[in-house]
Amino acid sequence: MLVVMHHTATTEDVDRVCDAITQMGFEPRPMPGEQRTAIGLVGNDTRVEDSRVRGLPGVARVIHVSAAYKQVSREWKAETTVIELFNGARIGGNDIVVMGGPCSVESEDQLMRAAEVVAEAGGRVLRGGAFKPRTSPYAFQGLGEEGLELLAKARERFGLAIITEALDPRSAGLVAQYADILQIGARNMQNFALLKEVGQLGKPVMIKRGMAATIKEWLLAAEYVVNEGNGDVMLCERGIRSFDSATRNVMDVAAIPLVKSLTHLPVIGDPSHATGVREMVTPMARAAVAAGADGIIVETHPNPNEALSDGPQALYPDQFRALTREVAAIAAVLGRGV
Amino acid sequence: MLVVMHHTATTEDVDRVCDAITQMGFEPRPMPGEQRTAIGLVGNDTRVEDSRVRGLPGVARVIHVSAAYKQVSREWKAETTVIELFNGARIGGNDIVVMGGPCSVESEDQLMRAAEVVAEAGGRVLRGGAFKPRTSPYAFQGLGEEGLELLAKARERFGLAIITEALDPRSAGLVAQYADILQIGARNMQNFALLKEVGQLGKPVMIKRGMAATIKEWLLAAEYVVNEGNGDVMLCERGIRSFDSATRNVMDVAAIPLVKSLTHLPVIGDPSHATGVREMVTPMARAAVAAGADGIIVETHPNPNEALSDGPQALYPDQFRALTREVAAIAAVLGRGV
Amino acid sequence: MLVVMHHTATTEDVDRVCDAITQMGFEPRPMPGEQRTAIGLVGNDTRVEDSRVRGLPGVARVIHVSAAYKQVSREWKAETTVIELFNGARIGGNDIVVMGGPCSVESEDQLMRAAEVVAEAGGRVLRGGAFKPRTSPYAFQGLGEEGLELLAKARERFGLAIITEALDPRSAGLVAQYADILQIGARNMQNFALLKEVGQLGKPVMIKRGMAATIKEWLLAAEYVVNEGNGDVMLCERGIRSFDSATRNVMDVAAIPLVKSLTHLPVIGDPSHATGVREMVTPMARAAVAAGADGIIVETHPNPNEALSDGPQALYPDQFRALTREVAAIAAVLGRGV
Amino acid sequence: MLVVMHHTATTEDVDRVCDAITQMGFEPRPMPGEQRTAIGLVGNDTRVEDSRVRGLPGVARVIHVSAAYKQVSREWKAETTVIELFNGARIGGNDIVVMGGPCSVESEDQLMRAAEVVAEAGGRVLRGGAFKPRTSPYAFQGLGEEGLELLAKARERFGLAIITEALDPRSAGLVAQYADILQIGARNMQNFALLKEVGQLGKPVMIKRGMAATIKEWLLAAEYVVNEGNGDVMLCERGIRSFDSATRNVMDVAAIPLVKSLTHLPVIGDPSHATGVREMVTPMARAAVAAGADGIIVETHPNPNEALSDGPQALYPDQFRALTREVAAIAAVLGRGV
Repeated sequence: MLVVMHHTATTEDVDRVCDAITQMGFEPRPMPGEQRTAIGLVGNDTRVEDSRVRGLPGVARVIHVSAAYKQVSREWKAETTVIELFNGARIGGNDIVVMGGPCSVESEDQLMRAAEVVAEAGGRVLRGGAFKPRTSPYAFQGLGEEGLELLAKARERFGLAIITEALDPRSAGLVAQYADILQIGARNMQNFALLKEVGQLGKPVMIKRGMAATIKEWLLAAEYVVNEGNGDVMLCERGIRSFDSATRNVMDVAAIPLVKSLTHLPVIGDPSHATGVREMVTPMARAAVAAGADGIIVETHPNPNEALSDGPQALYPDQFRALTREVAAIAAVLGRGV
Repeated sequence: MLVVMHHTATTEDVDRVCDAITQMGFEPRPMPGEQRTAIGLVGNDTRVEDSRVRGLPGVARVIHVSAAYKQVSREWKAETTVIELFNGARIGGNDIVVMGGPCSVESEDQLMRAAEVVAEAGGRVLRGGAFKPRTSPYAFQGLGEEGLELLAKARERFGLAIITEALDPRSAGLVAQYADILQIGARNMQNFALLKEVGQLGKPVMIKRGMAATIKEWLLAAEYVVNEGNGDVMLCERGIRSFDSATRNVMDVAAIPLVKSLTHLPVIGDPSHATGVREMVTPMARAAVAAGADGIIVETHPNPNEALSDGPQALYPDQFRALTREVAAIAAVLGRGV
Repeated sequence: MLVVMHHTATTEDVDRVCDAITQMGFEPRPMPGEQRTAIGLVGNDTRVEDSRVRGLPGVARVIHVSAAYKQVSREWKAETTVIELFNGARIGGNDIVVMGGPCSVESEDQLMRAAEVVAEAGGRVLRGGAFKPRTSPYAFQGLGEEGLELLAKARERFGLAIITEALDPRSAGLVAQYADILQIGARNMQNFALLKEVGQLGKPVMIKRGMAATIKEWLLAAEYVVNEGNGDVMLCERGIRSFDSATRNVMDVAAIPLVKSLTHLPVIGDPSHATGVREMVTPMARAAVAAGADGIIVETHPNPNEALSDGPQALYPDQFRALTREVAAIAAVLGRGV
Repeated sequence: MLVVMHHTATTEDVDRVCDAITQMGFEPRPMPGEQRTAIGLVGNDTRVEDSRVRGLPGVARVIHVSAAYKQVSREWKAETTVIELFNGARIGGNDIVVMGGPCSVESEDQLMRAAEVVAEAGGRVLRGGAFKPRTSPYAFQGLGEEGLELLAKARERFGLAIITEALDPRSAGLVAQYADILQIGARNMQNFALLKEVGQLGKPVMIKRGMAATIKEWLLAAEYVVNEGNGDVMLCERGIRSFDSATRNVMDVAAIPLVKSLTHLPVIGDPSHATGVREMVTPMARAAVAAGADGIIVETHPNPNEALSDGPQALYPDQFRALTREVAAIAAVLGRGV
């Protein structure tokens, strides 16, 4: 349930509604807007008897949010959330945000060369894994804090915001000290302990869709983070698992416009993990933007053949530059910039 | 195996190679090109000993086609096949071809109004089912030959080419008398009797991808048609089945660039069946073209609310016009027209 | 809608109900039972106003069939359909029916040796493909009518009923001249022209589940056959397509009890195609019977290493005999024989 | 790589091989067996040059483990691992182990009544969630430590071992203080931080298969735990996600014999989560045992209609007793007890 107040409503009016909701046994969540305040009610899934609230002074109308997810729904908040980064990038705004970088941070040289490519091509965010979730315990697990330090160094040098993955609620705080955006990987989309933890760290969060996650489960994962008080959440479509092994995953491009109709959170496309094949990354980046994505995240490596992880899907620097140009042209068709 | 001849090779050289292939127990298939002739060998899946052919006069080189599909592969023929229609549309050429129309032909009035919308918006092909494959035996099964006659009438009036589905090898010949393109539906993608039949009818064929068909199975379905001597085949991505019921199917947009890298046949995107939801059709049409599709096929109906089948995914006429404009703008980014 | 008559109802009572249904614009379908007659109404999907029928003499009660499938539903007919074969086998009865034989009929020697193994192990039905649906046009397509003749010879010699696949509505009549059961393959589950054709040929039909067919679609495929007047239909679970390539398909064992709760038609399990791996066939045959299957169909070959198709999943004769013994023991736990 | 020693090999021989492996840059892992010792080598995925080890005294043979998973593979250890519980139950031994209990621990009364049913029916392990992974942040999240205390009380009263889920590496130690078996849920199958943590807690671990996990990924999840030094790991098939919503998931019964051929770890079937429908639980429990499962885990509740989670799949006490009897009869066919 969402209580929308008149633009003339006073602080007392808002407090009175909150008290009534508390007395009804629920938790009120006031959300001041530019024009007027709305008060959300969290804590239940079923329809609430609203007569007690509907008649209070200052109440314009009461909306029953029908979906299982509440605070992330478009019913709850109609305008798309815009997440502002230190370098001026605005995710969810009119411009498409390009994020790029290597799968894993491997060395200072590798990272700085990758960051240079990203920055020069017009990217605003540098990706790079310091803690890596690997299917095998014997695979390279990332540089850890050393990787985070290198990312911070690249930020300083190139003015790029940093996105990197948090894997463990115990070290998520450490990651948050360095990162501008915390990434929740596909395998952890329903790691609820981690979702709750990153909801409390005060940094924007990007939630990748789980490999077999329904749209509803994905939005409820975001609801976990938002429900901890962190509204700066974006979603990332990175391919779902299907029967055909011709590509690594199937990029569910239609999820982009669908999710954007259901939630106010920005949506990013990841053509690198969705396809796993270098030749497919650029066409799928174009497709994601054509379908309405607010940004893309793409792997690029100064020397893909020497990458410690996911080399076959990393773009060569020249390919990354070409991709950025093509994405900008598609964005322009939709009235958007890069 | 594919034997590529020198551009100086004579007819005698070609005949000699064909004879050698015949003596080796296979069937030669000469394919004269603009610059030089290639000779394909069909009839087996395994590697052929090529020494007997390699040394013959006029032979430039011998290519072993590694995929299970032969004649549809890019190894067999490097340039994209262009299918020319009576009205000048060239599927597989530089321009994106827009196909539109209702799910089913329902009446003359309905079809003529739909055709007018398609033609005015710049579409070149009119779709409309006369024989309908329906999951339930109690559902509307189409107007049959009466529907075909209405399609022919619309062709005459609006100069649109006609695409309509053939369901049964016994009536495929009848459909071919009216249609400019024969459609093989997703449920019939591995109806091999039907594929062989339409391979002999002398009309272009569009093969929709089966709901759980791998890329390889899809290309082998096309191989069935081409192997009957009909090279005018195009493929249509129309969504695959997945675990999420939020959309009817998952449009495998990445299949478009992937398939285009593997085959010389043109590829069409069908955002209507892929999503089943009107609001998603336009963004997914844009995505398909951005990913490299040679055309799109979209359902539109003069009055979707009264449609006898698939109403919820049919575009209103205004939406169809807007879609065509947006698709043209995306195509222009890729250096293509509509 | 289903009208159940009193056991004292007369022929006139039945006729009167049929007339009323006809006047209501639907088609009545009387089904005389051992105790009393029921009259089905086909031709629509929606709820029918039943007051006109409910008050007629002899009417015990009116049942509204809620599912999209009507005549195959348990609501329409409560007792499991039993399909009797010439050799006394009763599919859907208390005994589990074992069907065995090679993937393809290859030669008289091969087929007779396979039939001998099946018959000696207690199998009642011989399988063997004469017309083969092959993914590639270049693969062995079956012996055709020669294969049918060999099957008939094996029937005569070993007293086994014959099941073989019909691929094409044009040759289905020929297959029906030889076969005791017509098989509709997974790829043709929604080949509606073929389903209608086999519904008119007067032979029992086994419909394999399509690779991505929902339970509802599968039952509606059976409805197509039953609606042509042929009630002797059985269903066969043969594995569905999934994301893991560790086995060829995923055998949806739970579909067996689920489908049996929804329909009165018998259900067969096919562990050979479901797994594609010889070592998995016997455990999955046991699982299918433990879950409630009315029979199993298993590939066995006198010499699997020389099979022209599907050799890796064919059991050696000794394995087939062991499987039959194990299946019989599991059946006994459920109070069933073999 | 696995070095198998002669049964006459001395401790010095074993030490010498370990030293050689260390000098080669890998970590040796000696595994004393009843007859002879084997020494595993962990830490890499590629083929190791073995000449240095092969010639050492006491070495019988050197095995190269081909799979990505090493220590869990049958190549590494041929006999099935048997996990012994305090109450004499032996998971992986000849007897099928039945685990039962409610989805969530809700109250002392509920848990004790459920435990009584499980114990009287011959179950050896009591299941019950104290920390619950819930798709929605607003759903009941479990009683936490209070739930663990109730489980311990039920263990004391009924002699049942306790299995309950660990969700968070920070509280896994707490769970391990109470539980006899730690459960890793499907959503956490690739929560590598959690897997590493439970690998160090000294309690047996049951790893549920992820909803879209391949067999290989599942075995590698187990490898994470075993690689921390905890060999008491069992796997649990609980259904995978598929396109049909007729059941909650598709139980991949064939995964049971397949996985047992690849790994020495015991395998459990969970028909409750696999189907989500009460009527399907018993037939699928029978199927799992018929296919070779070492145990089953089933939800039962004294009053399913009042359950706080997953009520529709919980068996009534009478149904649980009947299930145990049927499973025992199927087990007997395979020469196993309960």
